[in-house]
Amino acid sequence: MSLDAAATKPHEQLAAALADDLASVNALIRERMASEHAPRIPEVTAHLVEAGGKRLRPMLTLAAARMCGYDGPYHVHLAATVEFIHTATLLHDDVVDESKQRRGRPTANLLWDNTSSVLVGDYLFARSFQLMVETGSLRILDILANAAATIAEGEVLQLTAASDLATTEETYIKVVRGKTAALFSAAMEVGGEIAGQDTATKQALFDYGDALGISFQIVDDLLDYGGSNAIGKNVGDDFRERKLTMPVIRAVAQADADERAFWERTIQKGRQEDGDLEHAMSILAKHGTMESTRVDALAWADKAKAALDHVPDHALKQMLVDLADYVVARIS
Amino acid sequence: MSLDAAATKPHEQLAAALADDLASVNALIRERMASEHAPRIPEVTAHLVEAGGKRLRPMLTLAAARMCGYDGPYHVHLAATVEFIHTATLLHDDVVDESKQRRGRPTANLLWDNTSSVLVGDYLFARSFQLMVETGSLRILDILANAAATIAEGEVLQLTAASDLATTEETYIKVVRGKTAALFSAAMEVGGEIAGQDTATKQALFDYGDALGISFQIVDDLLDYGGSNAIGKNVGDDFRERKLTMPVIRAVAQADADERAFWERTIQKGRQEDGDLEHAMSILAKHGTMESTRVDALAWADKAKAALDHVPDHALKQMLVDLADYVVARIS
Repeated sequence: MSLDAAATKPHEQLAAALADDLASVNALIRERMASEHAPRIPEVTAHLVEAGGKRLRPMLTLAAARMCGYDGPYHVHLAATVEFIHTATLLHDDVVDESKQRRGRPTANLLWDNTSSVLVGDYLFARSFQLMVETGSLRILDILANAAATIAEGEVLQLTAASDLATTEETYIKVVRGKTAALFSAAMEVGGEIAGQDTATKQALFDYGDALGISFQIVDDLLDYGGSNAIGKNVGDDFRERKLTMPVIRAVAQADADERAFWERTIQKGRQEDGDLEHAMSILAKHGTMESTRVDALAWADKAKAALDHVPDHALKQMLVDLADYVVARIS
Repeated sequence: MSLDAAATKPHEQLAAALADDLASVNALIRERMASEHAPRIPEVTAHLVEAGGKRLRPMLTLAAARMCGYDGPYHVHLAATVEFIHTATLLHDDVVDESKQRRGRPTANLLWDNTSSVLVGDYLFARSFQLMVETGSLRILDILANAAATIAEGEVLQLTAASDLATTEETYIKVVRGKTAALFSAAMEVGGEIAGQDTATKQALFDYGDALGISFQIVDDLLDYGGSNAIGKNVGDDFRERKLTMPVIRAVAQADADERAFWERTIQKGRQEDGDLEHAMSILAKHGTMESTRVDALAWADKAKAALDHVPDHALKQMLVDLADYVVARIS
């Protein structure tokens, strides 16, 4: 492991420190993506797995295992597993999101993509399953099976909670755990598990991933309404898709009669007009829910950092601390 | 276990002989289908898991375990696992098949179903994964992980082979293994595995499931062109969906210039007209490919029965022998 002095962002520092491991992960991903029987599979996955992507989730697994002193080969399998699960959920999300965005009028090409997305996602799930079996650890299989169930439940919950003004903050956090935090926490925990750590340390690793994932997703949802710095490129997606995220849930709870009617029309009934997004943002500002949500995101980041107090000191640990700060820096 | 004297069909005999075990499987399925966080999940799965359904695949697991003398509790977990995997693949097939049948013009309702199908299918996969982890057997996880990969590869292969006149019999058998035989063979093998059988017996159980699944699917594909008795309710689905099944693959291989042009127009280019299905059936009859495919299906059923020679004698074994005969009785 060597540190690239020029790397400044925490995920770049992690990538530099874990460069050799990441190269092994990438090689394993390429090897296992290939299908002797169905050559189309790598075509579909290549642009997702190969291109871009910070490899954030696999880096969490590698960092957790390495900072716990692991020197066997299986953290690479687990990191590839986590990336496959992530890619499979992205593929299946495509089906869900596309069908919403182009309600009732998808193109034939879009449908072909849906079909490929579903089946290739299933293939990647199956491949990830084979990879984790190779580690020979039932406890790891248990962790990842539970994460898979939490992810799927969260996705269904998000679907049913969409456009429902009765959605609570508690439901929102469950959705966020499914969308993001469950895989972050499992990625951390399996790193500790493969390194043979005690229960308290594994819990601390889990807690870091859970809190990091939640702060990460809350920040994302804030940026969807412009955040504090309004850098969001896709501002308004959640509003248009009638997703109830924290700032809106809190504003609905404090709504006067006019505002209530506004949310019922735009979110519940989905009858949106020009200017509605701007009006929604002004309501959020009026009730201070962007700010109170921002405070929550910072608190989750603090919780992530505090969890690492229980983990042995290591250069990688400091990068994970910095990563928690970096995640919320976008809204600070 | 008690035999219902009135039961005549082999799967009804199996259901009667395994009635207590099946009741446990159904209870476990209901329990694990439930989602505390996402109540919509049982709504979507109930009609699939509860209603009708012969429970053929779980019965294979139960029968394999019981005839190998297993008396622990985990064959029930494995039978539920197998049914969950089957239901999940049905849900995901819905997305694939619907998108083909209503090319370019799905309704909003259809899209909602697609979304639910994908996510609830994923949930059932995750739940099946948790169930198998509970058995505590890495070898079982390995068998089912490999089956899951074969299923997913087969589905993608079917997608890419559709409308491709160059599809070979070898490719067709791979598709059939993915669609049907991989879960049949895994269902049988895990029954032997949980019962602690030796390698030869587990191989025999696997071989039975593999050959039964292949004969089952070939018969289904024959009935899609009317079979010998023309009972098919949905005759012509495969032709309309431009799927290359055995009778067509063989007819394409023997086609004269006119027939080649017919297959190119109807299957490759998908430009189908009234009367094409009937013409296709007349070409299949001319080359005798319905009959030669029927002979193959019977040979696979014989192979299934022969595999059971290596399994200890048991009342359930005779029912499995009868089941192999019953599967091909539809075309005899």
